Amino acid sequence: MNGAENLVNSLVHSGIDVCFTNPGTSEMHLVAALDREPKIRCVLGLFEGVVTAAADGYARMTDRTACTLLHLGPGLANGLANLHNAKRASVPLLNIVGQHATFHIPNDAPLTSDIEGVARPWSDWVRTTRSVHEISCDTLEAIAASKSEGGQIATLIVPADVAWTEGGAVAHPLPHVPERLPSQERVEKAAALLRSGKRTALLMAGNALYGTGLVYAGRVASATNAALIAPYPFARLERGADKPDVLRIPYPREQAVAFLEEFAQVMLVGTTAPFAYFASPTVGPALIPPDSTVHTLAFPKEDPQKALEALAQCLDLREASTASYTQPYPPPPSGPITLPGLASAVAATLPANAIVVDESMTSGRGILAAGRSAPTHDWLANTGGSIGIALPLAVGAAVACPDRRVLCLSADGSGMYTLQALWTMAREGLKITTVIFANRAYSVLKREFGALGIGEPGPRARDLFEIGRPDLDWVSLAKGMGVPANRAHSLDELVNALSRGYASEGPTLIEVPL
Amino acid sequence: MNGAENLVNSLVHSGIDVCFTNPGTSEMHLVAALDREPKIRCVLGLFEGVVTAAADGYARMTDRTACTLLHLGPGLANGLANLHNAKRASVPLLNIVGQHATFHIPNDAPLTSDIEGVARPWSDWVRTTRSVHEISCDTLEAIAASKSEGGQIATLIVPADVAWTEGGAVAHPLPHVPERLPSQERVEKAAALLRSGKRTALLMAGNALYGTGLVYAGRVASATNAALIAPYPFARLERGADKPDVLRIPYPREQAVAFLEEFAQVMLVGTTAPFAYFASPTVGPALIPPDSTVHTLAFPKEDPQKALEALAQCLDLREASTASYTQPYPPPPSGPITLPGLASAVAATLPANAIVVDESMTSGRGILAAGRSAPTHDWLANTGGSIGIALPLAVGAAVACPDRRVLCLSADGSGMYTLQALWTMAREGLKITTVIFANRAYSVLKREFGALGIGEPGPRARDLFEIGRPDLDWVSLAKGMGVPANRAHSLDELVNALSRGYASEGPTLIEVPL
Repeated sequence: MNGAENLVNSLVHSGIDVCFTNPGTSEMHLVAALDREPKIRCVLGLFEGVVTAAADGYARMTDRTACTLLHLGPGLANGLANLHNAKRASVPLLNIVGQHATFHIPNDAPLTSDIEGVARPWSDWVRTTRSVHEISCDTLEAIAASKSEGGQIATLIVPADVAWTEGGAVAHPLPHVPERLPSQERVEKAAALLRSGKRTALLMAGNALYGTGLVYAGRVASATNAALIAPYPFARLERGADKPDVLRIPYPREQAVAFLEEFAQVMLVGTTAPFAYFASPTVGPALIPPDSTVHTLAFPKEDPQKALEALAQCLDLREASTASYTQPYPPPPSGPITLPGLASAVAATLPANAIVVDESMTSGRGILAAGRSAPTHDWLANTGGSIGIALPLAVGAAVACPDRRVLCLSADGSGMYTLQALWTMAREGLKITTVIFANRAYSVLKREFGALGIGEPGPRARDLFEIGRPDLDWVSLAKGMGVPANRAHSLDELVNALSRGYASEGPTLIEVPL
Repeated sequence: MNGAENLVNSLVHSGIDVCFTNPGTSEMHLVAALDREPKIRCVLGLFEGVVTAAADGYARMTDRTACTLLHLGPGLANGLANLHNAKRASVPLLNIVGQHATFHIPNDAPLTSDIEGVARPWSDWVRTTRSVHEISCDTLEAIAASKSEGGQIATLIVPADVAWTEGGAVAHPLPHVPERLPSQERVEKAAALLRSGKRTALLMAGNALYGTGLVYAGRVASATNAALIAPYPFARLERGADKPDVLRIPYPREQAVAFLEEFAQVMLVGTTAPFAYFASPTVGPALIPPDSTVHTLAFPKEDPQKALEALAQCLDLREASTASYTQPYPPPPSGPITLPGLASAVAATLPANAIVVDESMTSGRGILAAGRSAPTHDWLANTGGSIGIALPLAVGAAVACPDRRVLCLSADGSGMYTLQALWTMAREGLKITTVIFANRAYSVLKREFGALGIGEPGPRARDLFEIGRPDLDWVSLAKGMGVPANRAHSLDELVNALSRGYASEGPTLIEVPL
């Protein structure tokens, strides 16, 4: 058994069964070891930004460590922007990155770089394994690091000579590190604040937003009349007609301030006080009103679900039933494309138990709210604001949940960042229906320029905001990567195309010109 | 005048007239300043790997500092892999990277990251400008850094509040730092070695490979019978029937060793001794025979052209004419596609004064040699081994040289990394003819796996080397981004398509299924 086999066996013993990858020559012994291990499914991405976001999507839907295998410093570098998003999603993620043989590094061959330096800005744990006798322990420690602190990025760098050397043995997996819990004092203070009768919002993140966490949150909300809210950048939110309604803080600063204004008390559950994405010369970036009481029930690295369970217990709500949220199922809309019509079309056609991956940006801001009346589904958002996450995040979600339908909503500008994900959808036969909102612009930037107060952008600035001339033809782009696609020019066509997409055995794409 | 205007004016005063960019909200004041400055042409890329490689191509063809404008840490991260290649090309390159307003950084808004940490692995110079009174000096210092040491990567990080604050003034450009020259002792030793009569190779890099440098190299070669050779990863090589022939060290280790075996003396001109790209468990990575005499005429940061001029002077060759290299111009090939036929087709059709950008990988290894008999052209290669450079490098070369035709040769696997460059070609109307060698595989990896000595790859490994299932349809991909395209199934069709491409007023693409 060589180092590469030690590593792969350690992955298998830890329950890792998928590896998202784009390997190169320096990872060839790792590929050979994976080749002989049927328990791990390898999913190829044609660009590493696809690989890391797919791992993120997989981790969000399984709550288990997702694994990537990347080629040296540049391969890792290509995956960094979506690692930024994954880190902001607090998912457990393990990157295995190949390195030159240790004796080859001083030769400064063309692909040499400071891989630890490349990893560090977006990794919570970084190590270069030094010998075949340490590689299994290092792998297990990396996996343990990925699972701790509520989900972290761990990057293990593997020199080729450590991978190809015979020796070593597979170590025992490390014991599970229990989740961090909030202090009883903070739980009791939260209960007291909720009993005060003041208008309160529970601002929730992590596993407060789905599963058992959301059940407890719903009970607390029903009993205390608190609002359940989520930051604009949330990782995963369980939605639908029979789920407690969680309202999202809007993206535009002024709307976010207006939204939060009504709350005299804001209780933080696994997150920190929110701020605007960007500062401005004229208004401050704080969103919570200065006279609101802010109480932290659970800090970001504490377990939000356990915190809500403790809070419910403290409020004597452990056995209380939640309110029923069943609402009438709306009919599909018809007529010309409008933004509210788009939202209705999505809500009216969404299959039960779907996963919605949303990077629809300015075009899709009404869709989440409309989904309120759809059957139960999970909603995955861009957590870090680095665009280009939706298509590959959908890949990972679909690999994680082969029995569920995935709806991927992407703006055209965002979609272009990692459009290579379409090929992986086709190769793996993933049941993903992608909708591209083709407004031919980085609309967010147009608005931000307008807010500068210096008038309309001139032709040079407009050229940087508008991505027409030439228009992107997403039907051709999808076809080029083996994904059947068509264009919807009306809500009727969109509803039909969505229905056909959900009935398909593989991926489809719908371009919606706006 | 605010900080952003100070910065833009400093660029203009330094002669920078193009900015390759994909800006975001935090760069909006810089965009506004560029909007009002007609002397700088902004070229938008729909992904930052396009932006940085385009800057590299521009710098290689102009020998002037190329400028990028990028959005925060993730925008810079997306550009890093091609910055790795640019750094290995020793081009002068300035990245301007937006940062949150200084007072907003502690709020840890979603897009916050350690931008200096992200920049450091591939930047020779990194600074965050701290005030409107320093931004002009910092910009000029960054440009000076980019031009020094034979060409460097400088990254200037600009907080939004520094950009929007009024004040400051444009500083005076820094004096030009003269190139470093080799010592007279090393020049004389080189001359003595050349006079020894032993078989000698001049292994050259940087500006030894084109223009005046190549003229001097040709004189030295003619007079001393030395061979002119280049590392496999060179930045720019002037080629053609009337130019001194420079032979490239082959990529495969065993071929490189055989190639270098005949030389009793290797003289390094602006480069270091070459090594194999990757180490192996069985053979060492050194390429130069252990009994060869290796002499450094010019170290990498010294000026290779000046070194060759000094050498020619020392050898009394300042006025000597080079040999004539004119060779018969071959007829275009015909019949089914073969790799030698592809090379002949390219050589036979290449227009005078073309720029060839080459990332054809395993499919195109004969093309450089075939181009020996074509009219004068420049050849740009992948310098750092991080794939995905060709399409955007061609963008930068075409922006730099609007009167020259650009031929872009890309493997399909490499092309997928930065295919968004096709859109920029279309938008800017660049005269680039792209040829995609569609072998549906990472063929390099197949060969490397075979070299492991563990037999044929199984199905899981093959899935990571073969990028068919589904086949990429490059005609559709190009159409999707506004680039007219067709497929060549024979050498006759390829010759026709190349000729049509060279006659076109904008970009075209030809897929060659292999």
